[in-house]
Amino acid sequence: MAGNAFGNAFRFTTFGESHGPAIGCVVDGVPPGIPLAEADIQPFLDQRRPGQSRHTTQRQEADAVKILSGVYQGRTTGTPIGLLIENTDQRSKDYGDIAQAFRPGHADYAYQAKYGIRDPRGGGRSSARETAMRVAAGAVARKVLNAILPQGVVVRGAMTAMGGHAVDRARWDWAAVTGNDFFCPDAETAAAWATELDAIRKRGSSIGGIVEVVAEGVPPGLGEPVYDKLDADLAKALMSINAVKSVEIGEGLGAALLHGEDNADEMEPDGQGGVRFLSNHAGGILGGISTGQPIAARIAVKPTSSILIPRKSVDLAGQAVDILTKGRHDPCVAIRAVPVAEAMVACVLADHLLRHRGQCGGF
Amino acid sequence: MAGNAFGNAFRFTTFGESHGPAIGCVVDGVPPGIPLAEADIQPFLDQRRPGQSRHTTQRQEADAVKILSGVYQGRTTGTPIGLLIENTDQRSKDYGDIAQAFRPGHADYAYQAKYGIRDPRGGGRSSARETAMRVAAGAVARKVLNAILPQGVVVRGAMTAMGGHAVDRARWDWAAVTGNDFFCPDAETAAAWATELDAIRKRGSSIGGIVEVVAEGVPPGLGEPVYDKLDADLAKALMSINAVKSVEIGEGLGAALLHGEDNADEMEPDGQGGVRFLSNHAGGILGGISTGQPIAARIAVKPTSSILIPRKSVDLAGQAVDILTKGRHDPCVAIRAVPVAEAMVACVLADHLLRHRGQCGGF
Amino acid sequence: MAGNAFGNAFRFTTFGESHGPAIGCVVDGVPPGIPLAEADIQPFLDQRRPGQSRHTTQRQEADAVKILSGVYQGRTTGTPIGLLIENTDQRSKDYGDIAQAFRPGHADYAYQAKYGIRDPRGGGRSSARETAMRVAAGAVARKVLNAILPQGVVVRGAMTAMGGHAVDRARWDWAAVTGNDFFCPDAETAAAWATELDAIRKRGSSIGGIVEVVAEGVPPGLGEPVYDKLDADLAKALMSINAVKSVEIGEGLGAALLHGEDNADEMEPDGQGGVRFLSNHAGGILGGISTGQPIAARIAVKPTSSILIPRKSVDLAGQAVDILTKGRHDPCVAIRAVPVAEAMVACVLADHLLRHRGQCGGF
Amino acid sequence: MAGNAFGNAFRFTTFGESHGPAIGCVVDGVPPGIPLAEADIQPFLDQRRPGQSRHTTQRQEADAVKILSGVYQGRTTGTPIGLLIENTDQRSKDYGDIAQAFRPGHADYAYQAKYGIRDPRGGGRSSARETAMRVAAGAVARKVLNAILPQGVVVRGAMTAMGGHAVDRARWDWAAVTGNDFFCPDAETAAAWATELDAIRKRGSSIGGIVEVVAEGVPPGLGEPVYDKLDADLAKALMSINAVKSVEIGEGLGAALLHGEDNADEMEPDGQGGVRFLSNHAGGILGGISTGQPIAARIAVKPTSSILIPRKSVDLAGQAVDILTKGRHDPCVAIRAVPVAEAMVACVLADHLLRHRGQCGGF
Repeated sequence: MAGNAFGNAFRFTTFGESHGPAIGCVVDGVPPGIPLAEADIQPFLDQRRPGQSRHTTQRQEADAVKILSGVYQGRTTGTPIGLLIENTDQRSKDYGDIAQAFRPGHADYAYQAKYGIRDPRGGGRSSARETAMRVAAGAVARKVLNAILPQGVVVRGAMTAMGGHAVDRARWDWAAVTGNDFFCPDAETAAAWATELDAIRKRGSSIGGIVEVVAEGVPPGLGEPVYDKLDADLAKALMSINAVKSVEIGEGLGAALLHGEDNADEMEPDGQGGVRFLSNHAGGILGGISTGQPIAARIAVKPTSSILIPRKSVDLAGQAVDILTKGRHDPCVAIRAVPVAEAMVACVLADHLLRHRGQCGGF
Repeated sequence: MAGNAFGNAFRFTTFGESHGPAIGCVVDGVPPGIPLAEADIQPFLDQRRPGQSRHTTQRQEADAVKILSGVYQGRTTGTPIGLLIENTDQRSKDYGDIAQAFRPGHADYAYQAKYGIRDPRGGGRSSARETAMRVAAGAVARKVLNAILPQGVVVRGAMTAMGGHAVDRARWDWAAVTGNDFFCPDAETAAAWATELDAIRKRGSSIGGIVEVVAEGVPPGLGEPVYDKLDADLAKALMSINAVKSVEIGEGLGAALLHGEDNADEMEPDGQGGVRFLSNHAGGILGGISTGQPIAARIAVKPTSSILIPRKSVDLAGQAVDILTKGRHDPCVAIRAVPVAEAMVACVLADHLLRHRGQCGGF
Repeated sequence: MAGNAFGNAFRFTTFGESHGPAIGCVVDGVPPGIPLAEADIQPFLDQRRPGQSRHTTQRQEADAVKILSGVYQGRTTGTPIGLLIENTDQRSKDYGDIAQAFRPGHADYAYQAKYGIRDPRGGGRSSARETAMRVAAGAVARKVLNAILPQGVVVRGAMTAMGGHAVDRARWDWAAVTGNDFFCPDAETAAAWATELDAIRKRGSSIGGIVEVVAEGVPPGLGEPVYDKLDADLAKALMSINAVKSVEIGEGLGAALLHGEDNADEMEPDGQGGVRFLSNHAGGILGGISTGQPIAARIAVKPTSSILIPRKSVDLAGQAVDILTKGRHDPCVAIRAVPVAEAMVACVLADHLLRHRGQCGGF
Repeated sequence: MAGNAFGNAFRFTTFGESHGPAIGCVVDGVPPGIPLAEADIQPFLDQRRPGQSRHTTQRQEADAVKILSGVYQGRTTGTPIGLLIENTDQRSKDYGDIAQAFRPGHADYAYQAKYGIRDPRGGGRSSARETAMRVAAGAVARKVLNAILPQGVVVRGAMTAMGGHAVDRARWDWAAVTGNDFFCPDAETAAAWATELDAIRKRGSSIGGIVEVVAEGVPPGLGEPVYDKLDADLAKALMSINAVKSVEIGEGLGAALLHGEDNADEMEPDGQGGVRFLSNHAGGILGGISTGQPIAARIAVKPTSSILIPRKSVDLAGQAVDILTKGRHDPCVAIRAVPVAEAMVACVLADHLLRHRGQCGGF
């Protein structure tokens, strides 16, 4: 009943707190015979790793992943893959006083209400540190997708707005994403964001953002109606990421504005016995099942609640306090949400690929 | 692996096609001793029932639910509750030609791609008819919530925009919701919608909409971090409803625009040893766990794809065709999504209440 | 958390009480395109059906199954298959007094202790009537197995001992099984049992028995180490059948008596690039995975507790009472356990076949 | 779909191979606030640990467990508990040649057939080394049981037969169990076994055995009919242990021999408003639900297949070979199965306690 596992056929279970000795996960259900090494996982962890620019938290973590099981002579064996990352930069002293009060916007109050106890060091289990294991699992998921689908599945994300400042879609360039500190597909906007975020950070504030993930190469047929629809599982996967407040698929919120004749994606013969869609308002999913078009999801990420501006709160003794969160925080947590969101999408796709193959065969 | 069940501790499994002999569900995990009769379920089904105004499909279904098991002398016994609704108005002839082509915006193509076979009568399993069983399960979930939480949980929804025309929140009146054909909390807007939708319907088109659901009386502590967070499960539940394209929690998409000091809900002592929040940008959920504030979710519903305006498509022989969908369709499917969305929220809450009680006790 | 579903990839969920209006089940995960009709299911139900000889309960139930969904034009569509059997011979009056006391050996006391309420009519949910839906699900499972494995999987069972009177294995003849009232593979023993059981029934007593199930044609590779081993899931499936008190795989209890050199099944090349086992002490399963040899399981079934001999018990008021169970009971419930045990084995195999295909592909 | 997790509400997921760097597990669903330290787990691991007498394998493993998460200031926090044991004595050279052939009675052939690849070092995932994590999880389960049920649940096991040589039940003494190398409740028999097993070991053979586990203090009401019956889940849990070939509950196989009046446990008022059973043929479970009586389960463990007596087999090239298994093996693996079986019973009980509390409340 507790909720520390994700997925069904491709299933990962994670553990670990922000300031405990280690975080880890078990990935179960990986098909046998897939080449896998730490080097397949580490680059994705490095994307999410803190301390890489002034725009993210200055906590220093190598996030060096170790594979503890499930791989023999460089190939997966079909048995569970244990992954471990030791925490190295724990600096618990930074977090001493937050043990005594509930930080607004954080999970402190809710964890206390649920469990009657909480590990306050760095937010404990509720810390975004947990997302490192999502990224690790996502790297394994990508290997699974590409092993079964040799033409390849490409899952990539980008930050498309910081606060009210969106990218110019006319300048969208996937190649630009890795060339700035924001996973921004528009270098010009990225430069402007850098200036804006410096200002936000310097006054001790933070800002929200929008992240989009697109998966190309997904075959038609993935998704399990009617409750485990592909979009439903994507929504769960993405909403479970820290600080995410909305999930949209394809046209998303904009679909509410449309008339039927504008929203429904028309089809025509593709000349090869198949079907070509003339638009993709659906975001690659109809009836909860992939159509073969690119799958497009979008999330809104709230501003990090760890800010240097004092806010009203209550301490454990029930007294009113003003609280501000010192330490090393992300002024725009949406940035590092990009590799996490990609990873969750990859995990959902791998899971549904195996689920589909179980019932329907064919891959 | 197939996806026809929802929930974990409170779990329902459904079956049935639009034009088969019946639809049904099994609700498992209901606590024993709760008074339950068909009369507790039927009113919610009647809200969703087609054919009640000119603004929804004219299909005539009594949607009369029968309890087949799990209740003895008017009380639940803890054993599974079988529910059945016979389909009475099947009129398969309306759907004869859609067997030969894929309707744009519908699940036809995706089902065919996944299964290699589909029941084309009324959309088969992908029909919104399936949502009747969600509503039935939701009615049982409400009974569970209110049996365990005697102060009562109120889950209610409203349609808040049709196309680009939103309600005036200054006129929000929950009492108005049942007084118009739109579940609209603003009678004035409802009247305008009626005129607008008449025009849309008459020209054979359809329109999208926005639905909001609010749950009050939910105790703090529900939700299972980190993958079965309460908001994650709500996102899945709501995104799994036919035609839904986005899910927002609390501030939702708007959170991306905010600074940290504006988004994080401050707290103060409530004078009774507890905590009072000064705002609810979070929508009642922090760290994936309920805080005791009202839980607020919002969905965007796309326009129904069954329209009388011809659209380009492909038939089973791979030839280009123009297709238009005759028959009895909802010009704004968001209307009937209101009771369905309420039901899904109730089911998620009941599920998490039982899950929480299992691990943490206390209710 | 409640336990009214079985299986993972091939999963069925049941509902219904002995004397309610109907029993039913939902079979989810069935591959699409498999021919399926009521006539594929009914013969197995007829084997289990009460009232077919003087050696089983005289309750009269047609056990006519209806398929409510998941089949279109005679083929499965991949959507859930709803099955329903209406109860016709309910005769609740037979059971009036057992509502007031706990029948020894029955689930009455345990259900009351668990739920604080119970449906006493015919044992309610704890009645062996529930096993009809297992048999129905098992019939679907057989179709799945034989659709994916065209060489065919044969799952068949037999009663091999009644009380202390075992069959003569030298006379084992599968063809004899359908020729007597006991599913006995040894006609001579069956004749003797008939006489013995007449005497037992006439003095109002009952007797236990042993049932064996053998599955031939199962490919190597099925089973999910280390907790969902094929033998572990078979053990659960069989132990979940009413009145079963032991499960053995292959050599079973006898394995405890053996030395390593006598127990381990030797192998030799089969001359076709494969392996031939020289014995089958393992019962077709090693390390929780099928080996390609016949899978052999054996269960002990306790004597039915519904007897005409008065036994000491306690009533709902806490007073000592003598209780005897009138009505129409099986003097040897092991007989009708044969088709039920076969069905559960078939369901486990179908489930593991789909699970294996999901992770490893290949069928 | 893969099977490396056990349980539902109390759920553990394990990973690790015999000769990999480490084995580990994640225990999810543990209630918060329970005192827990490595010292609560280590004693149970020490009981299972190899190398403690000449009657078990001479592999030397400290089996030192580390808690990596889920505990703060000595108490569980409700978040997942990560446990890790580093493998120290790997000596892969012992296992070099078994990579080239299938050891009879072992999982080698089956793993190869299933996955097309296997880690041959010490049996890889199929090694009994994996059972260490079961024991660790079982230690946590005991803490859960005793935290929720303050009167205490005692789960204890004993080896009751080695080959055909059973203990004398008249001499049964639980205190004796820890006083010999066999977990034998009868010191006299233990002494005889020592001599017998020396002889078996010296001639390079092995022998099977019987293990019984009894759980006292289990409240009535645990178990989830009809597929997750308490006995069904115990059967699965116990059958999933390496080398187990049968599971019996209460009277077990003997129930097949009895008449109804001898098998059904009579009841009488206990003088305190409750019920006292006059016998316990049921083994503490009726209808799949605990009755409050001691829960009694029995397993048969086959002789270890790693013997020094040459056996016929086949190598990877398909050639006939004679194989004998050098190395450090248990001549009677039933001995070390005792703490493992206890652990699995404790896990099943903890799981069902939480499941029951979720649906029915009350603890």
